[in-house]
Amino acid sequence: MRVSFLKRVLVGPPMPLAQARHERLGKSIALAVFSSDAMSSVAYATEEILLILVLAGAAAAHLANPIAVSIAGLLIIVAISYQQTIHAYPNGGGSYIVAHDNLGTVPGLVAAAALLVDYVLTVAVSVAAGVAAITSALPSLQGYKVVLGVLFVAAIALANIRGVRESGRIFAVPTYFFIVSFGVLLVGGFYRMVTGTLEPVTEPPPAAMEALTWFLVLRAFSSGCTAMTGTEAISNGIPAFRAPESRNAAITLAWMAGILATLFVGLTVLASALHVLPSDTETVVSQIARRVFGSGLLYYLIQAATALILVLAANTSFADFPRLSSLLARDRFVPRQFATLGERLVFSNGILVLAGFAALLLVAFRGETHALIPLYAVGVFISFTLSQSGMVHYWWTRRGPGWRHRLAINGTGALATGIVTIVIAATKFTHGAWIVVIVIPMLVVTFLAMHRHYEEVAEALTLDGLEGPPEFQHTVLVLVGDVHRGVVRAVQYARTLAPNATVRAVYVETDPGRTAKLEEKWGAWGLGVPLVVLTSPYRSLLRPLLDYIDHIQARGDDQMVTIVVPEFLPRRWWQHVLHNQTALLVKGALLFRKNTVVADVPYLLKR
Amino acid sequence: MRVSFLKRVLVGPPMPLAQARHERLGKSIALAVFSSDAMSSVAYATEEILLILVLAGAAAAHLANPIAVSIAGLLIIVAISYQQTIHAYPNGGGSYIVAHDNLGTVPGLVAAAALLVDYVLTVAVSVAAGVAAITSALPSLQGYKVVLGVLFVAAIALANIRGVRESGRIFAVPTYFFIVSFGVLLVGGFYRMVTGTLEPVTEPPPAAMEALTWFLVLRAFSSGCTAMTGTEAISNGIPAFRAPESRNAAITLAWMAGILATLFVGLTVLASALHVLPSDTETVVSQIARRVFGSGLLYYLIQAATALILVLAANTSFADFPRLSSLLARDRFVPRQFATLGERLVFSNGILVLAGFAALLLVAFRGETHALIPLYAVGVFISFTLSQSGMVHYWWTRRGPGWRHRLAINGTGALATGIVTIVIAATKFTHGAWIVVIVIPMLVVTFLAMHRHYEEVAEALTLDGLEGPPEFQHTVLVLVGDVHRGVVRAVQYARTLAPNATVRAVYVETDPGRTAKLEEKWGAWGLGVPLVVLTSPYRSLLRPLLDYIDHIQARGDDQMVTIVVPEFLPRRWWQHVLHNQTALLVKGALLFRKNTVVADVPYLLKR
Repeated sequence: MRVSFLKRVLVGPPMPLAQARHERLGKSIALAVFSSDAMSSVAYATEEILLILVLAGAAAAHLANPIAVSIAGLLIIVAISYQQTIHAYPNGGGSYIVAHDNLGTVPGLVAAAALLVDYVLTVAVSVAAGVAAITSALPSLQGYKVVLGVLFVAAIALANIRGVRESGRIFAVPTYFFIVSFGVLLVGGFYRMVTGTLEPVTEPPPAAMEALTWFLVLRAFSSGCTAMTGTEAISNGIPAFRAPESRNAAITLAWMAGILATLFVGLTVLASALHVLPSDTETVVSQIARRVFGSGLLYYLIQAATALILVLAANTSFADFPRLSSLLARDRFVPRQFATLGERLVFSNGILVLAGFAALLLVAFRGETHALIPLYAVGVFISFTLSQSGMVHYWWTRRGPGWRHRLAINGTGALATGIVTIVIAATKFTHGAWIVVIVIPMLVVTFLAMHRHYEEVAEALTLDGLEGPPEFQHTVLVLVGDVHRGVVRAVQYARTLAPNATVRAVYVETDPGRTAKLEEKWGAWGLGVPLVVLTSPYRSLLRPLLDYIDHIQARGDDQMVTIVVPEFLPRRWWQHVLHNQTALLVKGALLFRKNTVVADVPYLLKR
Repeated sequence: MRVSFLKRVLVGPPMPLAQARHERLGKSIALAVFSSDAMSSVAYATEEILLILVLAGAAAAHLANPIAVSIAGLLIIVAISYQQTIHAYPNGGGSYIVAHDNLGTVPGLVAAAALLVDYVLTVAVSVAAGVAAITSALPSLQGYKVVLGVLFVAAIALANIRGVRESGRIFAVPTYFFIVSFGVLLVGGFYRMVTGTLEPVTEPPPAAMEALTWFLVLRAFSSGCTAMTGTEAISNGIPAFRAPESRNAAITLAWMAGILATLFVGLTVLASALHVLPSDTETVVSQIARRVFGSGLLYYLIQAATALILVLAANTSFADFPRLSSLLARDRFVPRQFATLGERLVFSNGILVLAGFAALLLVAFRGETHALIPLYAVGVFISFTLSQSGMVHYWWTRRGPGWRHRLAINGTGALATGIVTIVIAATKFTHGAWIVVIVIPMLVVTFLAMHRHYEEVAEALTLDGLEGPPEFQHTVLVLVGDVHRGVVRAVQYARTLAPNATVRAVYVETDPGRTAKLEEKWGAWGLGVPLVVLTSPYRSLLRPLLDYIDHIQARGDDQMVTIVVPEFLPRRWWQHVLHNQTALLVKGALLFRKNTVVADVPYLLKR
């Protein structure tokens, strides 16, 4: 009673299917809805590049600029490549669908596994970075990173289980707040840089720990590539756009890529100019904002905008993960529960699984963004590569108008992202990417095993070729430990329900001294049902019973044994502990036994 | 399969009831069997007295001698008093039986609760002290006290679940080894004291923390009274003696009291003479032995004897606790499982509960004897007092030959132990005794509640006044989620088992789009059983089903509804996760519902 009340308060009342509705979004709202994940990486991507570069000393930090520019270039290649997908798959061209359709089942599942892993990481990384934005502004919360992170995940999950309707306006506010406030930060920063009023950091730079090798530069590049996660969001959501859907989606994608590239490169240039270096207690963005604006209201607005967009980015995964896992469930690659619409018309199971894993990652990696980053982006780039390769195959087989041109674009995208995938996996392998490299194939193998199982079940259960219903010979055994009203009731139940079956009462004798008295009572109250006494020299209840059932079923495959178990219904929950232990034991042993049915007959104790 | 193999290796094969046997013990073996608990307290009682006295400075330590002598006097009073009980209750006169018989149910239960609590504490204190004896000799194990203690408890519990036959010889070895080696220690110590070759401790004594008040002296006395735990063991075990049982038991009790008093007082006098004071890392006994013998072989023998007798003392509780709880279960004051003989002819549940609580105490009190001592002895003295008071009542009502004399003896015992009970509870109250003072009444209340419940059940189940078996109107509902072989089988099961019942298939419609197709399939494969479609606008499976059952049962108290749930039997355990979720949900909701029977019909997937 109380549990369900709590559930109602937290989750809200159930919603009828008729309430399911779909809102069509204009371009400016759609930009806000679909780009929070991508945009939000501006909050940490620069910092992650610097974090690797400064291993080779502060002087290496200037390399952040060319790295950021090349990532921006890569982003533009991927965006153009994805515009093709948008036109080819107007009903939604997620990597799973595109890879599955064009390359086959396994590539599709690899893309799906990679994406699922990355959705979990998006939640963990975004929440960790959002918490870092908060603790940078309010250092007294420094010690509560993990707790805050887990609470954020729980709150976002709860909101999604209630069913966040994608009412664009709510999403528009934080996204545009973020774009505008970071725009102001860049303009202000560059203005003060040009006018020479900006004071660079003068703290002593850290000593070099490693040599500045190509490998280190590539590792920094890999870390920066986290900026590109979320680029695929628009191609998943095409049906949500107003008509003409594909055209509007493609335009929005261009806008998103442009804004993201500008913010990311701009922020990186500012960081270099200010000689800002990563610190344990304050994010790079926070340091830049403090230097440009001072520690006033504008600074706190930047931090608030960062935290908000990061929470929103995490929220995006809570739409994507359940959607993708429901697609996999419909194709029978994951348990069908992922395709079940909950009371509030959302895929609650996907939401819960995502939240669980994300919280686990936050705890395991102590809520540190830097620790999670090496695991991140591998999955996204695998899915980019598979999706673009799928598009290459698409054009090659279809050869519609302008196919050579389109194939070239997607080919370039596939090649670029393929190379970057290898670079990321190689440079971050020992820092954590190996986990992802192991998990993805494990997931794919699991998907295939589940699929095979579901196929086998469907085959075993098919009605094709079924020749009439099976014949059964029924035996009904009433378990008797003592003779009392509950037992008399159970015997009466058995003999009136199954008048044609062989009905027996079965007593397992653990103490021979009691048997005679019991048999005498049975004579008076047994309702004419024969009593079978099974001896049990070792006082085991189960063994003699199982042997007896075996004995009956040895007569043939048509022997169906129904075990009737009398159970008490006590008045209070704690009284259950005092009864029904035998019933529980018997049910546990017989529950999954061929041709054996267990039936509980309750006996209500006076209330 | 593997679990049961492991169980066989650890616990051994089951034993038939015919193997139960009883060995009769001669006096010398009986002394060893029944006195380990009492004797073993010599290992810590002196130390616990000193520990309190030195709070008032090293000079107060000399008061240990008069305290030890008065405890020895108390011991002799109690022993003489118990000799009366032995003669009056030749079949075993434990405190529960004596108090219950003579004073009534509640005093009996108070004695039982006090004893159960003290048995748990005996295990915890003895094991903690045994571990201290080991770590005194081998200081490198100092950091593993809790782990060692819990391992000891587990090992003793396992040995008892296997069924330690009380074959006296095994017990005789460590007990006599202890008596002899401590005898040698005393003789050696006093010889060297008299010849003046003993060097007293010269370390600077600790500063006084408290004033030397009467309260402090009484607290030291209370701590020393732990020496008397286990005195009642012989009176529980009279039937194990050779004839004449009572006489032999009484003589053995006298021997035990004499040896215990001698060792205890002797050791305390030696400690005073040597100016030995308690230390964090070495027990008092270890310090004495080191000074008398040096750190040679004899020293290690003393430590080994101490550890052995303490383990044996803990083992005594593993006989007493299950025996007392089985008596309580037979009288229906605790769950009946405590009276169930396990496969190895021991009361396994009592053993497990005792081991669990003792391990819990060791962990909670970090394996420190000193921390556990304030909780100890309160229970024993409560049971002494009740038992002796019961004997007073016994003589008063019977008035056999010499009753005045006997009443006087037991009256003295009752008075003395009653006063000491109050002294112990008062002086140790704030140091932990309050826990016991709260727990004992809570246990008694629980015993009474369980008893009332069992009485109510017996009354509700009685066959007296039962007028013929109940009449049932049977409805059988087969739950259908889809039409496949498993469902066809379940329908066939229902209609052949219950030919006279109203059989219906029930389908809860969560997606109206599927219903028409299902109904069509049903037409072909439904075996003529009508299909009831329950609409569920909120996609809940349970609500419409429960409403439908309510609807049927509203017709009258004779309506019996049997829910047939088709379940899969997958090939591998993990595949269960992929199925049967609905079945589990339905069973959970219906299991304890009046007039509602749940029957699982398994469908075996091809193997």
